[in-house]
Amino acid sequence: MIPIDDSPIVRDGKTLILAMDHGLEHGPTDFADVPEKLDPETVFETATHDAVTAMAVQKGIAEGYYPSYEDDVNLLAKLNGTSNMWMGEPDSSINWSVDYAAEVGADAIGFTVYSGSNHEVEMYEEFRKAQEKAREYDLPVVMWSYPRGQGLKNDTKPGTIAYASRIALELGADIAKVKYPGSPEAMQHACKAAGDMNVVMSGGSKTSDYEFLSTVEAAVNAGCTGLAVGRNVWQRDDPTRLLDALEKVIYEEETADAALED
Amino acid sequence: MIPIDDSPIVRDGKTLILAMDHGLEHGPTDFADVPEKLDPETVFETATHDAVTAMAVQKGIAEGYYPSYEDDVNLLAKLNGTSNMWMGEPDSSINWSVDYAAEVGADAIGFTVYSGSNHEVEMYEEFRKAQEKAREYDLPVVMWSYPRGQGLKNDTKPGTIAYASRIALELGADIAKVKYPGSPEAMQHACKAAGDMNVVMSGGSKTSDYEFLSTVEAAVNAGCTGLAVGRNVWQRDDPTRLLDALEKVIYEEETADAALED
Amino acid sequence: MIPIDDSPIVRDGKTLILAMDHGLEHGPTDFADVPEKLDPETVFETATHDAVTAMAVQKGIAEGYYPSYEDDVNLLAKLNGTSNMWMGEPDSSINWSVDYAAEVGADAIGFTVYSGSNHEVEMYEEFRKAQEKAREYDLPVVMWSYPRGQGLKNDTKPGTIAYASRIALELGADIAKVKYPGSPEAMQHACKAAGDMNVVMSGGSKTSDYEFLSTVEAAVNAGCTGLAVGRNVWQRDDPTRLLDALEKVIYEEETADAALED
Amino acid sequence: MIPIDDSPIVRDGKTLILAMDHGLEHGPTDFADVPEKLDPETVFETATHDAVTAMAVQKGIAEGYYPSYEDDVNLLAKLNGTSNMWMGEPDSSINWSVDYAAEVGADAIGFTVYSGSNHEVEMYEEFRKAQEKAREYDLPVVMWSYPRGQGLKNDTKPGTIAYASRIALELGADIAKVKYPGSPEAMQHACKAAGDMNVVMSGGSKTSDYEFLSTVEAAVNAGCTGLAVGRNVWQRDDPTRLLDALEKVIYEEETADAALED
Amino acid sequence: MIPIDDSPIVRDGKTLILAMDHGLEHGPTDFADVPEKLDPETVFETATHDAVTAMAVQKGIAEGYYPSYEDDVNLLAKLNGTSNMWMGEPDSSINWSVDYAAEVGADAIGFTVYSGSNHEVEMYEEFRKAQEKAREYDLPVVMWSYPRGQGLKNDTKPGTIAYASRIALELGADIAKVKYPGSPEAMQHACKAAGDMNVVMSGGSKTSDYEFLSTVEAAVNAGCTGLAVGRNVWQRDDPTRLLDALEKVIYEEETADAALED
Repeated sequence: MIPIDDSPIVRDGKTLILAMDHGLEHGPTDFADVPEKLDPETVFETATHDAVTAMAVQKGIAEGYYPSYEDDVNLLAKLNGTSNMWMGEPDSSINWSVDYAAEVGADAIGFTVYSGSNHEVEMYEEFRKAQEKAREYDLPVVMWSYPRGQGLKNDTKPGTIAYASRIALELGADIAKVKYPGSPEAMQHACKAAGDMNVVMSGGSKTSDYEFLSTVEAAVNAGCTGLAVGRNVWQRDDPTRLLDALEKVIYEEETADAALED
Repeated sequence: MIPIDDSPIVRDGKTLILAMDHGLEHGPTDFADVPEKLDPETVFETATHDAVTAMAVQKGIAEGYYPSYEDDVNLLAKLNGTSNMWMGEPDSSINWSVDYAAEVGADAIGFTVYSGSNHEVEMYEEFRKAQEKAREYDLPVVMWSYPRGQGLKNDTKPGTIAYASRIALELGADIAKVKYPGSPEAMQHACKAAGDMNVVMSGGSKTSDYEFLSTVEAAVNAGCTGLAVGRNVWQRDDPTRLLDALEKVIYEEETADAALED
Repeated sequence: MIPIDDSPIVRDGKTLILAMDHGLEHGPTDFADVPEKLDPETVFETATHDAVTAMAVQKGIAEGYYPSYEDDVNLLAKLNGTSNMWMGEPDSSINWSVDYAAEVGADAIGFTVYSGSNHEVEMYEEFRKAQEKAREYDLPVVMWSYPRGQGLKNDTKPGTIAYASRIALELGADIAKVKYPGSPEAMQHACKAAGDMNVVMSGGSKTSDYEFLSTVEAAVNAGCTGLAVGRNVWQRDDPTRLLDALEKVIYEEETADAALED
Repeated sequence: MIPIDDSPIVRDGKTLILAMDHGLEHGPTDFADVPEKLDPETVFETATHDAVTAMAVQKGIAEGYYPSYEDDVNLLAKLNGTSNMWMGEPDSSINWSVDYAAEVGADAIGFTVYSGSNHEVEMYEEFRKAQEKAREYDLPVVMWSYPRGQGLKNDTKPGTIAYASRIALELGADIAKVKYPGSPEAMQHACKAAGDMNVVMSGGSKTSDYEFLSTVEAAVNAGCTGLAVGRNVWQRDDPTRLLDALEKVIYEEETADAALED
Repeated sequence: MIPIDDSPIVRDGKTLILAMDHGLEHGPTDFADVPEKLDPETVFETATHDAVTAMAVQKGIAEGYYPSYEDDVNLLAKLNGTSNMWMGEPDSSINWSVDYAAEVGADAIGFTVYSGSNHEVEMYEEFRKAQEKAREYDLPVVMWSYPRGQGLKNDTKPGTIAYASRIALELGADIAKVKYPGSPEAMQHACKAAGDMNVVMSGGSKTSDYEFLSTVEAAVNAGCTGLAVGRNVWQRDDPTRLLDALEKVIYEEETADAALED
């Protein structure tokens, strides 16, 4: 953890990451109800919203589309990722080097770590190399900290999420992206376990506007410094309306109710 | 994905790759009916046809024969490949470094990726290194994107092919080479899943002129920007006649019927 | 082993390492009774006590908190570590390079080795690289020498601990951190097995003040040149009182009784 | 494949390799009937015969004995090899780097590849590195192309040998060393599968003069450009007589009968 | 094999290596009857005897004690070694780089190779790297050539020992350290299998003075150029008496009887 308040991916101490690596991680099936979103341009357009401080994509998407948006969007280079056809213990291949991410114009890097997997040791070491290389470029590091694999039955139980955020702190991340552990108390515990490091809630599958915003409100109240969201934004017909509301909940700390009423 | 319209392997936005790595991937058995084609010179002669924008071969073939054809043929350096004696989960060894491919005169590189194999993670990482090295030489990258291995029963079902072309986009290919998924709708879906990236249909086993051209016509109408073909060309007694027809279907967007009538 | 008496982590030939990598190795559960200690600052404060010659933490904790304490605390960069969600044979991933540890300001490095694990060979080789790199920076090397894994049922039996300290000597550590083998005689044997190399006792789970200090006293009498302690210090409400006593037992070679009476 | 007609290991387009790596591959047992040949000097003496264009040995033998013969013998540095105590799937460790082989004075390199083994992918990649490094030194590359391992029951069936020579061509060898497939037709097929690349027959176990020379004659007639021989030469009491005959069969294309009558 | 007669570890063509890596390979248990020998200084003192041409130790022992003895003892840097807690197929981790060994002042390097182990291929390749690096420093290379592992029931049968010494020659060692194969004839065969390379007998477990010296006498008569000994020297109360006798048997080629009578 190094000071990142001056980073472009942070606004008033908060962060809202719009992620779209689902084409790799889940496949085109995630776009079944919004086929026009298969065109990455549509999601980059969404990412120009002021509420969004960074857009997380894989290398190929960045190469092809980021050049047209580099003035309006901050790039979070998601370095690793794997298809859902992978049948082994949870693992994630490194598809992008930090050097090349910096060359493409990344403002930060993102890296998935599956603690508890039989690949934990290998992934920690890969994370080390990416993190230390990112330091050379002064790029903040976001860890997708997802305990998963052999020995973990329920990866959202409170203790696991607190462990996840602590691991991100111990290993040198600047922001931990963790799942919502089910209650504000558990989220608060996970934030405290991270010390002074930023923790952002992971958005998950698409839910209703109110349900989603309420969870974000609870997370922010519990100490989260933001959100990383994908499907809950770009799977919506009108992402702007939700982003307007998220902007209020996250940066102005309004309630979900108030934000939706505006 | 980077802009490749100015690349020698692209003609009017289209690509026709003539591939001959079957000696490695399948063995001499693929040449049983056309033994004279064991002499790579015969296939290089075929590749001088104007319709062919690139010839894909392994390193040894390129070293031995490309020097005589470098003025008339564009070289697509197929970097990896494995014999069919391999009994493990689908994998492909890297038989050619990008540095040496560039030295031999490659105009582009080709790389097989078996998503879904137990070697997926390893192959993605090998692809990353090759792709980023190719960027240094400004060489376009063609991914043979073939989901295969544990957990994949039918590697031509529509969802799989769309996933295959999307993976190529996400990981940074410039052209995806995928199998025909069985219908124009599925092919169109796979092309849309690739965003602005080029997708070429993979030729497969030898069929009749008409059947083959009809499928190519359907693929082009569905959004494919070309074809990668091997056996359907060089296993024919008169490859020229078929290449003449392919030229019309691919570059002039004639129907298969019209192309064969000419 | 090289001469380390002039190192900042040694005071009068003795060493007291305060370790806090439990957030990674055990998870937030170790902080359940002292939740305020989840804030690493609280433990760094404790480490400013004169008795403490080095504080051992993982990279992320050092990056985030050591800059505020570099004048008052000596940093022992714990290079490797793994979560307790790891289900494989004992192993420890390298989370910090020696180069970067030196850059962050490390005064020494720490490295866990699990002899007897199926990863022994791999860990010895990783230790070699870290140790030789540390020599370039003149950083003393502390080996957490913990035989563990297949074939070891009881990792505190006397012969195992003597073997552990000897291995540290043979492989080039400057200080071995080993468990207390249960008796002063066994501890003495383990110290003799280390030749002239320093051996410090590992603190273990929290016990009573007297019980803990008595064991430290016995260890020092048996030849140990100090202690590496974590939970027995920072899990206490008043670590200072115990550190005062430890200072007497370790540096002034008082008895546990005398130290507690003061 | 690059042009090698000017290489010292080629004489009038033909090659006769005398191999003596049996001490590693088979052990001293191969020398049981000719114990004096355990002294490598005796075999180097044999290699000074004009018929021999290269002597293939492992690194240690070359280091110790080649300096005395460098004016009279061409050195084929056999880079890899394994003892027959190895119980795993066919594999061959790299015992000599190309850089050091060049330093010792190699005129060419030799490399075993076991296609079909579970180590095929790994061996192809090792071959790639050696081959490309050899190109830097302009050293011809001889592949011992031996399909072997899981899935191969009979490694001399015609299709396998043709596949073996084709693989050597595809992967970039300059000469393939393959087993005699049992008939002139099959040998011819294997030579055609190699395109313009040289193919030499592998000598195998010791047989009678006539039987051996007849097979060599058949192989040369079928298109082989020479022979790699070990035991059939140095296990003989008088290797010179056989080498005289081989010289006639290989370079002068005499019959076995005529060569033995001379 | 390169000429090593001028090396400090050779005296009149002979070599006597005093080895003390038992603390790593066997553990403190080897010192049970001579606990004072746990102090490496005592063994270094013994190594100052004129008969000893080199002392073989692991890195940590060399770092700690060799500086005081560099004028009187030649250092044989034993690069690899493993604890006896290792339960896998025979393997040996590399605990010392050649570069650092040279920096510490090594006069030669030592390396264990377990032919026949499932790690044979890996160990041969590690040996290659160490051997070629040692050549850069002109350091002789001693191979502890010990066939062991899956498929080897009896590692001292004559054929195995001859194979062991031959492998050392083929792979580029300068001295092979092998076990006594049980008879002078078998030892002679093993020496002949090594060509001109030096072969030294490995000392083994402690036996009586006479028994030990007789075996050494037999080995020297069979062609061995010396001895590598550990326990048979430093486990004795008076190593000097035995070293005096060994000096006569090895360098002056006296009989065991004569040497003990003196």
